[in-house]
Amino acid sequence: MTELTGLSLIGYGRGDKSGATLRGVNPATGEQLPPLFYGATLAEVDAAAQLADKAFAEYSQLPGRARGAFLRCVADKVEALGLPLIERVAQETALPAGRIQGELGRACAGLRMFAAVAEEGSWVDARIDHAEPERQPAPKPDLRSWLRPLGPVAVFGASNFPLAYSVAGGDTASALAAGCPVVVVAHYAHPGTAEMVGQAVRDAAEECGMPEGVFSLLYGVGNDVGQALVKHPLLTAVGFTGSRRGGLALLQLANNRSAPIPVYAEMSSVNPVFVLPGALRERGAEIAAGLAGSVTLGVGQFCTNPGLVILSKEAAATSFLAQLQNALTDYPTPMLTASISKAYREGISARRNIKGVSVLSETLGDESEHGDASALMCASVKAFLENPSLAEEIFGPTTLVVTHETRDEVLQLARNLEGQLTATIHGTDEDLREWAALVRILETRAGRLVFNGFPTGVEVCHAMVHGGPFPATSDGRTTSVGPRAIRRWARAVCYQGFPAAALPAELLDENPLGIQRIVDGELNGPHSEPRI
Amino acid sequence: MTELTGLSLIGYGRGDKSGATLRGVNPATGEQLPPLFYGATLAEVDAAAQLADKAFAEYSQLPGRARGAFLRCVADKVEALGLPLIERVAQETALPAGRIQGELGRACAGLRMFAAVAEEGSWVDARIDHAEPERQPAPKPDLRSWLRPLGPVAVFGASNFPLAYSVAGGDTASALAAGCPVVVVAHYAHPGTAEMVGQAVRDAAEECGMPEGVFSLLYGVGNDVGQALVKHPLLTAVGFTGSRRGGLALLQLANNRSAPIPVYAEMSSVNPVFVLPGALRERGAEIAAGLAGSVTLGVGQFCTNPGLVILSKEAAATSFLAQLQNALTDYPTPMLTASISKAYREGISARRNIKGVSVLSETLGDESEHGDASALMCASVKAFLENPSLAEEIFGPTTLVVTHETRDEVLQLARNLEGQLTATIHGTDEDLREWAALVRILETRAGRLVFNGFPTGVEVCHAMVHGGPFPATSDGRTTSVGPRAIRRWARAVCYQGFPAAALPAELLDENPLGIQRIVDGELNGPHSEPRI
Repeated sequence: MTELTGLSLIGYGRGDKSGATLRGVNPATGEQLPPLFYGATLAEVDAAAQLADKAFAEYSQLPGRARGAFLRCVADKVEALGLPLIERVAQETALPAGRIQGELGRACAGLRMFAAVAEEGSWVDARIDHAEPERQPAPKPDLRSWLRPLGPVAVFGASNFPLAYSVAGGDTASALAAGCPVVVVAHYAHPGTAEMVGQAVRDAAEECGMPEGVFSLLYGVGNDVGQALVKHPLLTAVGFTGSRRGGLALLQLANNRSAPIPVYAEMSSVNPVFVLPGALRERGAEIAAGLAGSVTLGVGQFCTNPGLVILSKEAAATSFLAQLQNALTDYPTPMLTASISKAYREGISARRNIKGVSVLSETLGDESEHGDASALMCASVKAFLENPSLAEEIFGPTTLVVTHETRDEVLQLARNLEGQLTATIHGTDEDLREWAALVRILETRAGRLVFNGFPTGVEVCHAMVHGGPFPATSDGRTTSVGPRAIRRWARAVCYQGFPAAALPAELLDENPLGIQRIVDGELNGPHSEPRI
Repeated sequence: MTELTGLSLIGYGRGDKSGATLRGVNPATGEQLPPLFYGATLAEVDAAAQLADKAFAEYSQLPGRARGAFLRCVADKVEALGLPLIERVAQETALPAGRIQGELGRACAGLRMFAAVAEEGSWVDARIDHAEPERQPAPKPDLRSWLRPLGPVAVFGASNFPLAYSVAGGDTASALAAGCPVVVVAHYAHPGTAEMVGQAVRDAAEECGMPEGVFSLLYGVGNDVGQALVKHPLLTAVGFTGSRRGGLALLQLANNRSAPIPVYAEMSSVNPVFVLPGALRERGAEIAAGLAGSVTLGVGQFCTNPGLVILSKEAAATSFLAQLQNALTDYPTPMLTASISKAYREGISARRNIKGVSVLSETLGDESEHGDASALMCASVKAFLENPSLAEEIFGPTTLVVTHETRDEVLQLARNLEGQLTATIHGTDEDLREWAALVRILETRAGRLVFNGFPTGVEVCHAMVHGGPFPATSDGRTTSVGPRAIRRWARAVCYQGFPAAALPAELLDENPLGIQRIVDGELNGPHSEPRI
């Protein structure tokens, strides 16, 4: 196992021991884990930003194949961490080994997917318009444009994805693929995991001859390190997965800079599930079982766990609710951190006291037992609309069943939903036809609509959209999963009248890289690989 | 000529006469033009927003061909306004008829370009990943995604483009093409022009059977109407071309909403021009003449007039500056509005008093003459870097020549530039090789780099980027000219497991529209028309 030092990685160097300290904690036992980790000082934050900016000048000019090779090397080195990594993640998160192994596979698949995107190269959206010197009344100049990386990017590790959305997760992989250096702020809940993965990224960078500063990893106690990074003038964009409060705080910081920068914060979503009458009749028990599984998956700590189920009042009176209740059995796995567990318990306590909310089942253990369990509550559409807090996410294995008496109530509820990552409909094909108006509304409220499935399980593929209108994310025009995610870190730059010698390969007439392009308004060139 | 009523267009109806009033003014004479225009009331703002939201439900579901036909009809009707429109624009702006005719052609070309984009349909970036039900360890679901319109959009008319960036200009055309209803706030400086064009859009909408509310046009006195619109909960995005102060005010309003919305504000740019030694030797006089023409084009009231020229100190001592000075002859055309003229004169007065700034020529007439003329000033790099106000745009026919003594000074100046719409280099091919570092820096500071040309003249074509890092625009990831501009009004939505009957034509396996798509990661389908 890699020896953990507890020090930030500043380019190819290390931070020192002058900052505030923290430790990993085993959420299953409360045990503090060695070693001691040292938060970065503000001087170290600045050093990482300066190195990243310096690296950007070189890294942004590398061919996509070089960035791809680097990302593949990162994936190889992270995979090679093997069992010791799985064990450290398990200690710091109490997640089961199978889940961690799966997430490791997903993180490495993501790194290799973005490597392929960078290598293939068509994502730069190259466009050429040739000059027409004889055009009347004025000549047309030669214009060529492509997407260029923004600059150094700050990435915040996520509590609930210690591998796939942390140090070498999707934000880091897509930003590096685009040509942006990355400074990661490690999540305090898995500092050892962060160091192991961070060291792998650092080693891959050095092995591949990447400029120092293309990657740094900072520890922080409290919010100072993250805030200093987002405010740093050399940073150009931010990736974040976490709470709404955390995401909004970063968004505000970024908006208040003298030059604001984009923040891609994936924040909160209750992922409503609408169970329509036909589906309930045909396979109510199956839906109840699937729903319970989706609510409690990962102890309810995924972005896409369904926290809201919409059901007719008659349906609620059937066996469906009892089936759901039975399926929501005790989940003894502890939550990821003591503070998540505390927030979950507080959220449940507050909700149960709201007028119009009835508790159908609740299996919360004693706090000292480090056991968190599911809770099922129920309310009417009227109560739901009167109490905005019922529309808020409680991060954990709970869901709220909202019962309606009329079709209009359902549409009204849908129209009043905040932005969501997902919205799900269970129905027959006939239900779907009858409820077309509901689909049209949900399209305006969510990034992904699921039919006869469950929202948990975010496939990594070209068509995936893992995003959604505010406040599901801070920028509803983007996705954090799938190849489209690379576009978040880029902007178009146009060259007018430049000689071939000063143009990148992507914009040369002969198209030496064989990428897909638009030339004089027409699609042109080979395209054996995905367009992004 | 269309009879002007002075009333806002609220869907297919008209505003009333209860609001505050304004009049068009002939900037050449100061004469007030009939009729009286009535600002929209807050109730009318709300009515326009409500109608737009209602229209969105239907308009967003129309096929691209229907939206295209609507936009072509708008272009036809605007063109058909003919001479009376040209005359009214001339009265309200004092722009020469030739320029207005050219801008009218450009506006209609833009409407038809976005019509073609909507009709062809590939801009929706359709992606299909087929299900793999047998996949281990978990089945892969069927996933399909495309870009969907955001919702009602607010567009602010620009003072300096009464046709091409106002009521039926680029923002309106691209938003309507995407499927977003548009509520325009007329610019106070050309209310009659706005009504004539607005009536044409309204008539086209009715003739094409578009839902009421797809277009509205509001007059406003002061900022109340615009602010109420941007704050309205049913609005989903904002397009603006104007001053930095105006753009930042809208950005702040939008960011402070309970659900923030994107603001695409094109604000300010000094469009630096670097004249390198070889070019100066070879064709100094030609560059001086071209530069003078670009500085004074449209009385310096384009977004892309060069307000900063960087030159070596030795070069400044040559005939170049004298040539530039001679070419910057008196431009008697008045500016667009009294307040623009006032701001220009104040900007010149303030700058001439800055320590280190010398005035090379100045031909400002008496204010009462309604004549605004060019001003040429000079400063060293040192003075430029010490006085941040020298980097600010003075909207009008003036430019600041900054002289450098060393190469490092040039690179330092470039690194300290704010975001720009354009950056221009005049040089020989050898200059360009020697100054590659300068090009690399400017790529990070501007949306468009011009070599041996001038930044004024924004070609409407696929490769164009008319955008740039903050504060050139509020969102440096976008362009307001060219087909890429349609993406500003859209976000991706994904459908998981939906039956074919519930999918749009764009996402059906058989690809009935023949659009370009990515299917299972591979580019697929005919593509005779431009991809966006």
